[in-house]
Amino acid sequence: MTTAPRRLHLALHPYGVGGPGQHGLWKDPRVAKNASIDIGYYIRQAQAAEHALFDALFIVDSQFINATYPAHYLNRLEPLTLLSAVATHTSRVGLVGTASSTYNSPFNLARRFASLDHISGGRAGWNVVTSFDTGTAGNFGLDEHLDYATRYGRAREFVEVARGLWDSYEDDAFPADVERGVFLDPTKLHALDHEGEHFKVAGPLNLSRSPQGQPVIFQAGVSEEGRDLAARVAEGIYAPGGTLAQAQEYYADIKRRTAAHGRDPEHIKVFIHGSPVVAATDEAARRREREIHEEDKDLGRSLGLLGRSFGAHDFTRYDLDAPFPDVAHLAEKGGRTTATKIIERARTENLTLRQVAEGLNAYKEGPFTGAPETVADALQHWFEAGTLDGVNLAFRTEEELNLFVDGVVPLLQKRGLFRTAYEADTLRGHLGLPVPENRHTAARA
Amino acid sequence: MTTAPRRLHLALHPYGVGGPGQHGLWKDPRVAKNASIDIGYYIRQAQAAEHALFDALFIVDSQFINATYPAHYLNRLEPLTLLSAVATHTSRVGLVGTASSTYNSPFNLARRFASLDHISGGRAGWNVVTSFDTGTAGNFGLDEHLDYATRYGRAREFVEVARGLWDSYEDDAFPADVERGVFLDPTKLHALDHEGEHFKVAGPLNLSRSPQGQPVIFQAGVSEEGRDLAARVAEGIYAPGGTLAQAQEYYADIKRRTAAHGRDPEHIKVFIHGSPVVAATDEAARRREREIHEEDKDLGRSLGLLGRSFGAHDFTRYDLDAPFPDVAHLAEKGGRTTATKIIERARTENLTLRQVAEGLNAYKEGPFTGAPETVADALQHWFEAGTLDGVNLAFRTEEELNLFVDGVVPLLQKRGLFRTAYEADTLRGHLGLPVPENRHTAARA
Ligand SMILES: Cc1cc2nc3c(=O)[nH]c(=O)nc-3n(C[C@H](O)[C@H](O)[C@H](O)COP(=O)(O)O)c2cc1C
Ligand SMILES: Cc1cc2nc3c(=O)[nH]c(=O)nc-3n(C[C@H](O)[C@H](O)[C@H](O)COP(=O)(O)O)c2cc1C
Repeated sequence: MTTAPRRLHLALHPYGVGGPGQHGLWKDPRVAKNASIDIGYYIRQAQAAEHALFDALFIVDSQFINATYPAHYLNRLEPLTLLSAVATHTSRVGLVGTASSTYNSPFNLARRFASLDHISGGRAGWNVVTSFDTGTAGNFGLDEHLDYATRYGRAREFVEVARGLWDSYEDDAFPADVERGVFLDPTKLHALDHEGEHFKVAGPLNLSRSPQGQPVIFQAGVSEEGRDLAARVAEGIYAPGGTLAQAQEYYADIKRRTAAHGRDPEHIKVFIHGSPVVAATDEAARRREREIHEEDKDLGRSLGLLGRSFGAHDFTRYDLDAPFPDVAHLAEKGGRTTATKIIERARTENLTLRQVAEGLNAYKEGPFTGAPETVADALQHWFEAGTLDGVNLAFRTEEELNLFVDGVVPLLQKRGLFRTAYEADTLRGHLGLPVPENRHTAARA
Repeated sequence: MTTAPRRLHLALHPYGVGGPGQHGLWKDPRVAKNASIDIGYYIRQAQAAEHALFDALFIVDSQFINATYPAHYLNRLEPLTLLSAVATHTSRVGLVGTASSTYNSPFNLARRFASLDHISGGRAGWNVVTSFDTGTAGNFGLDEHLDYATRYGRAREFVEVARGLWDSYEDDAFPADVERGVFLDPTKLHALDHEGEHFKVAGPLNLSRSPQGQPVIFQAGVSEEGRDLAARVAEGIYAPGGTLAQAQEYYADIKRRTAAHGRDPEHIKVFIHGSPVVAATDEAARRREREIHEEDKDLGRSLGLLGRSFGAHDFTRYDLDAPFPDVAHLAEKGGRTTATKIIERARTENLTLRQVAEGLNAYKEGPFTGAPETVADALQHWFEAGTLDGVNLAFRTEEELNLFVDGVVPLLQKRGLFRTAYEADTLRGHLGLPVPENRHTAARA
């Protein structure tokens, strides 16, 4: 038996303008000011990703904008309508949309992903989040964001229900036999009758299975509860990355936890975030990286980002040069992991608010910045060091995406690290994930 | 002052296969068996509608399929993902999707319609329904469908909230002024802070307004409560039609009620349902109409359709030839109007269950069946008799759509009843509806 060589997976994470880490992007004359609501922009990005043989396009989301710091999710398209429009202008690239299990209902969301999965011919993925922004609660009639246990318990049950609904029809449910006059074989259509702690859902869904069986489940939470959810149900992770050592620890931890749940650790693909800056020489790339940093630097924005980890807390009300305020009680509901780290660091290093805020957005040399050879080397190194199965790539402009695609991708291909042609039509196929057998067909066998 | 001539509006209502009134369609060799999940089918229908200068494509919906009679919404795409995919393959035709105000949350749904409105460049419409199928409750954790008062009260408040969210940004909220470093003018971004009987929604939405300001609101309820909702908030109605006299009564009633709410009755467009059957001669058209009837005839289906008006009640359990059973208590929650009519008729005419079921699907000569001249005459007659502003057209096959487009539309155009070119880019434009001024801009003036 020969095993296929382990290959790197690449996804594109297009921001539009005004996205996280791209505060100053709108000032760039090469970027349309309305990119984040221009479907043409996303279609072009998806086509570029497909042209480059990437595994997927990855769309993040929040159902909340903070009036005192609105820039983060200011004016952007809803992920599923966006991806559905992109689907019919591409034929291979996977389409992963973020949606919250906290502020959606399973029947509706399962149906929308199943619909996208059909429209795309089996290329849909769902990044399950529990909503980082605690202020989201206010848009859904709640006084307070649900706590961790409830949100993650709900997430687990939500995915279970969605998968049950996605199996409503067995693959041979539609004989469409004119002679016998039988369109549907009703014995192949199954209600769900789920009654759990958080949800009660009768089913069946009114959508059959797509060519990949079910949408691919991604996850993007870093807390203990988030990792546990991933290990149980996710087939892909959008991971934070960090230093090489941090990424190694995270990667090993996830694979270990997944195996502990009796799952094949190969069936969960860890993508870390990467923002490669590619130029003709290493020096030019570092110069560009510094330039981007200068464009984005903005204390108001850093305070806003900081507030995001503390329930959209308004940090502008404090003295910037006094010690970091006592906001530990605000860290409980959303983004606890990040918030806790911030508080910890402020305490041990005795930092002021200004220092914390500026530190969040301090200039750091990225691991994937340099000439094409350098970036390819770094990716190979991280890949072989057991930090990642894939990288979720973000670029400032279409030009910078092209520098990566034309410069780095061919090197990865020459080294056997990346595909030279699509070998599959579905997202599961690209990621080497099995098509889950329909549970009712399996039970019958 | 000259007034533009009053023009007929035409929308296309594509079914896919297995839709209402098209039970036998899948047997037609010209129709793909998977049409209802084939986005290519809907894109072709939309392009045909646009080629014919129609006002809109109209997609119906239900979030429920009945296991004992699943044919009705069996295996079909979710309306907003569907329309979003269609949007980027068309540039003029309006895109109206049905969505329930009973089993959705206002923030999510307002966002999805706003997203479709951007993706389509201002062509989105929302057909607000309160969910006809009482069984829908079971897919959303409820033991019982909400009652009329709650559903329609919720619908009214839902639309109010959606409209508030759609006004989150004033039109000049994004100066994107590089010199001054101002992307967003925060004084032009408004939270909603809605607290009503059914909903509490903070806002703002993270989507700006489209070229038509806000999606167009349609409605499709026939009860007292449904008409009241329409008169208050709708800009279009998908009306049942019926006989010419019934349609006249309905039309006059809606316009009167709309005026009574201080609204311009021209700003609510009544579309009735029509299933034209066009052929070279009147005889050939009637023959085809009878043939369709024979294809669709099926007692099981009639019992299923009947059950739909009584909370998915299973009528197969009764003796077909005994008097119509006493099911009045099942008519309270959904479709009360239809259910009441059925009971009334069964009682006064002393009908058996079989007679009622067969009667629901009895052969009737449709008003828009015949040679092109005949159909054009009938449309003109209904239009001038004050029964409709538009027709929502359903056809069996693409060929039969073409017979209408190539035969009837040119006659309507010659008579000045239908446009000969699009005069607008948005759905509001096609329907002659004003762009609603942003409420915050208005308040400022
Ligand atoms: C790379 C990455 C991408 C993320 N994308 C989203 C997103 O699109 N929407 C969202 O609500 N949260 C997103 N999150 C946040 C996580 O879902 C999660 O809330 C956060 O990492 C804190 O983890 P915790 O909730 O487990 O404490 C992302 C996190 C990471 C690391
Ligand atoms: C032409 C027409 C189209 C309709 N389309 C839908 C639909 O797509 N989804 C739905 O739930 N109800 C639909 N309805 C049902 C209405 O929303 C409504 O529930 C029904 O007419 C009964 O009216 P009532 O609820 O006011 O009693 C439609 C009704 C008509 C007359």
